[in-house]
Amino acid sequence: MGQQERSIRTRRLIVEAAGAVFAEHGFDGATISDVYTRVGLTKGAFYYYFASKEELAAVVLDSQMAEVRYPIIPRPTKLQELVDSGMVFVHRLRHDPMLQGSIRLSLEQGAHGLDQRKPFVGWFEHNRRGLMDAQRNGELHPHVDLDDVAEMFVGSFSGIQLVSQVMTGRADVERRISVLLQHLLPTIALPGPLAKLDMTESRGAQVLKEAAELGLTVS
Amino acid sequence: MGQQERSIRTRRLIVEAAGAVFAEHGFDGATISDVYTRVGLTKGAFYYYFASKEELAAVVLDSQMAEVRYPIIPRPTKLQELVDSGMVFVHRLRHDPMLQGSIRLSLEQGAHGLDQRKPFVGWFEHNRRGLMDAQRNGELHPHVDLDDVAEMFVGSFSGIQLVSQVMTGRADVERRISVLLQHLLPTIALPGPLAKLDMTESRGAQVLKEAAELGLTVS
Repeated sequence: MGQQERSIRTRRLIVEAAGAVFAEHGFDGATISDVYTRVGLTKGAFYYYFASKEELAAVVLDSQMAEVRYPIIPRPTKLQELVDSGMVFVHRLRHDPMLQGSIRLSLEQGAHGLDQRKPFVGWFEHNRRGLMDAQRNGELHPHVDLDDVAEMFVGSFSGIQLVSQVMTGRADVERRISVLLQHLLPTIALPGPLAKLDMTESRGAQVLKEAAELGLTVS
Repeated sequence: MGQQERSIRTRRLIVEAAGAVFAEHGFDGATISDVYTRVGLTKGAFYYYFASKEELAAVVLDSQMAEVRYPIIPRPTKLQELVDSGMVFVHRLRHDPMLQGSIRLSLEQGAHGLDQRKPFVGWFEHNRRGLMDAQRNGELHPHVDLDDVAEMFVGSFSGIQLVSQVMTGRADVERRISVLLQHLLPTIALPGPLAKLDMTESRGAQVLKEAAELGLTVS
């Protein structure tokens, strides 16, 4: 492993450790030393990679958008692709400390000076793009306001994963999101595409398995 | 004003000030002195009323449930009563610092040792009761799972008000909740009751105005 490669790997390890630390303690509660001791680095070595806790938090915060891939696997309906990307994200959220840290930083009202709008706006855009594709494909009720629906999904998802976290430590987050989708999609999708949609709670795991079998890298 | 009356009034002022302080700084960022200086009390006088920041936070956290009244004004459908209580709450949330503080404490992941489940469970119960009444009244689709829907509403509401707070400082929270209701109710309500529902964004203000005209105290 060359020096550059090693450097990239170390940077990645720092960001992953930071995700876990922010997930556990939030921005205010987290310390730089929590992070570098977890990776086995010295303080000096850490500062070679990141100038401050703020800089590190911004990278963790952004990481959730890198996780969003649309479409993951092409499907007969664009709505299924949109549902798939949501269910895969939620499935990952259960187990990935970096995503958990990123979500905590997005939802935390704090004096950390991060732009909290950024991830929300990123998700709005992601949903809007998926809904526009679905509309072009003739899958949506004609009255659907794409902006309203795109943003409503982001808000609902955020709150439902939070309820799941508080109530069960996210053990039931996939079931709760599946319930939400099953209640929202009928007012958005036309009956034909709706009848074909798989919105069951196991969908995320199933899509990831399928992607692995197809040799697609999704993590 | 007698001494007992004065004491009740002071306690109330402290709780209201605490709500505003928690809304602004969160649990970790808030200090007892922020609270007592705001009310014009000495530290000693403050400790006559509350033993700790934790005790004060628990009272602020609970305050949101005292705001929930169902039904506010009896309506032809039970679903309208449920919608009304939600829209009134959201309307108040825009302007009431104590509610804002309470919501912040509920949504904040922190080491504050408060039982974060409590307000969520309170809202679950509130919604479940309203939905059961609606079911008895023949307003719901027969397939509706009352527990699922009751909890889904709580999660969606929580997240949507958070998105509104981040994006516009809650200026558009009523519009966003109205959009949510208009997309969720069609899969819950039968067409007859649905057609009569008022879920417009001005509903909260309108119900409060009506209640004031009827001489009902709702604040």
